[in-house]
Amino acid sequence: MHQLRKPYLLFLGDVQLKSDAKTAFGLRDWCGEDVLGEWSLPQATVTLGLPRLAPVDAARRGAGSLVVGVAAVGGVLPPHWLPDLQAALDAGMDIVSGLHSRLSAFPELVQAARRSGAQLRDVRHSDQVFPPGTGRKRSGKRVLTVGTDCALGKKYTALALARALQARGVPATFRATGQTGVMIAGAGLAVDAVISDFVAGAAEALSPDNAPDHWDVIEGQGALFHPAYAGVTLGLLHGSQPDALVLCHDPSRDTIEGYPEFPIPALKDAIRRYEEAAHLTNRASRCVGISINSSSLSDAEWVAYSARLIRELELPVVDPMRGGVESLAAALMAS
Amino acid sequence: MHQLRKPYLLFLGDVQLKSDAKTAFGLRDWCGEDVLGEWSLPQATVTLGLPRLAPVDAARRGAGSLVVGVAAVGGVLPPHWLPDLQAALDAGMDIVSGLHSRLSAFPELVQAARRSGAQLRDVRHSDQVFPPGTGRKRSGKRVLTVGTDCALGKKYTALALARALQARGVPATFRATGQTGVMIAGAGLAVDAVISDFVAGAAEALSPDNAPDHWDVIEGQGALFHPAYAGVTLGLLHGSQPDALVLCHDPSRDTIEGYPEFPIPALKDAIRRYEEAAHLTNRASRCVGISINSSSLSDAEWVAYSARLIRELELPVVDPMRGGVESLAAALMAS
Repeated sequence: MHQLRKPYLLFLGDVQLKSDAKTAFGLRDWCGEDVLGEWSLPQATVTLGLPRLAPVDAARRGAGSLVVGVAAVGGVLPPHWLPDLQAALDAGMDIVSGLHSRLSAFPELVQAARRSGAQLRDVRHSDQVFPPGTGRKRSGKRVLTVGTDCALGKKYTALALARALQARGVPATFRATGQTGVMIAGAGLAVDAVISDFVAGAAEALSPDNAPDHWDVIEGQGALFHPAYAGVTLGLLHGSQPDALVLCHDPSRDTIEGYPEFPIPALKDAIRRYEEAAHLTNRASRCVGISINSSSLSDAEWVAYSARLIRELELPVVDPMRGGVESLAAALMAS
Repeated sequence: MHQLRKPYLLFLGDVQLKSDAKTAFGLRDWCGEDVLGEWSLPQATVTLGLPRLAPVDAARRGAGSLVVGVAAVGGVLPPHWLPDLQAALDAGMDIVSGLHSRLSAFPELVQAARRSGAQLRDVRHSDQVFPPGTGRKRSGKRVLTVGTDCALGKKYTALALARALQARGVPATFRATGQTGVMIAGAGLAVDAVISDFVAGAAEALSPDNAPDHWDVIEGQGALFHPAYAGVTLGLLHGSQPDALVLCHDPSRDTIEGYPEFPIPALKDAIRRYEEAAHLTNRASRCVGISINSSSLSDAEWVAYSARLIRELELPVVDPMRGGVESLAAALMAS
């Protein structure tokens, strides 16, 4: 399990495209109170609008980690980023990266970390060994976001739901299962990086026993209907033993993104399949609401679409970006 | 993907219990033509009944690998086994191990291998990176053994079925997905050791495009109803895109082994769940027969039990140990 040192300095490298800085924008928006500033190379053209702080200055103000908040070509760390990363390590900050390249593959970083006692944190990788899943019922309550596809709002929905519960005074913890989520929460585990045998066991460790009225709001991964990632989804679902599921969906997609021969199932079928799979480790598990990524719909279309879904599925339907998740939080409380 | 060097010398260490030498017995029984002999320490009390050959003598007769065919306490290689392993490496043989300890963790083995050019093959571990699954339809035919639980005959059934097809003159290949299977076949991949994100992709690589009338007989893993391993099962099922499924079952079990709170499903439900999951990557996939581990039944009980199942499920029912798998092979040919 990762445990990261906050607050953060967000590093943007030489980023030219806003979309390449998705991670940094996500961190700014979801844990802005934990971000001291941003830093980038002179040739960068994207900014987060945060105070510019060189690593040494950020360290002086108490930054715990420099977070690589930008995608690199092929996931490989370019050598011209190294001087800034070394400066951060020399100043005692950890480096947090979600790139494919491991930070530990760069001897200059390993040496700098050793000198200052700082840590290299590769959140995409996991060398931790977990016990296999036990299926043992744990105390506390759990809700898991699941999806009709990848990348349609499972992390966003879970973050919004955890906040909404906390705002109601309900004890709730966001549990991160992907690298950006781990950076936002400062803790968690990228389950898709775990050895397949241990996915359910890792998911069990991620949401341990808790107070009876405490909610773990667990970030889902993949989709049961995805030809590449359904196994990860199922292992996470079983290990999470969720009391409640929230189904995330993007109505603009007819097929799995990047897999045009694989249709997105009807929402009713998706709910049935997720509930059936969840019942293995929690017989009371049921879908309590739908979270829609409605960015493709006009206001009028969204009103009509959500009204139709509410009628058809008899469940609350929200878009976290369009009116929040209050009705989901209420449904959880009533469940 | 592992590719091992045959023929084998089977190493038994200081084994005292027959059950600890399960791997060695499996290799003797399933690829006896590839086994030159056995070797063990003087304190061993179990024998396979094969010619005793010291590593250097086995190498002289052409052995390609010394295979560790015995379980060690905690999966850890005991230091007093090292001299024999070193002797094998010095004689140019590879070492094949399915233990938790990695062979490469022992400097004396790494050095000996480097000196002679021999390989250390840890079949339990996989450092290979696979592309994610594509879901693309491949040429050739595939059958996958699936189960109501772990450890009830999926490997055995797949091996027997591949042989039965070959005996009929049908081109067929056993595809190993677990460590003992990999040792028997001399090739394959322990899918439970693969990073979870790549399980479906690894399964796709394991049974590549083939001649239209060729059958890949794929060893299944885990069970969809297992709280620890269902994710591995589903990823393997999706990547294998099987045309046919054979469901393996042990009627003496009411609950998942080691998980007394998890019931074994009814066979009808198990078939429905496996077919539904398989349809994601192969809409024509269907269960063509049942393979029973009937060791708990008397002859009379087996006759009655199998007759009842045939009537209820309208599928061929076999026990590979009790009359072979001919009716399964016939059902595959008719499918």
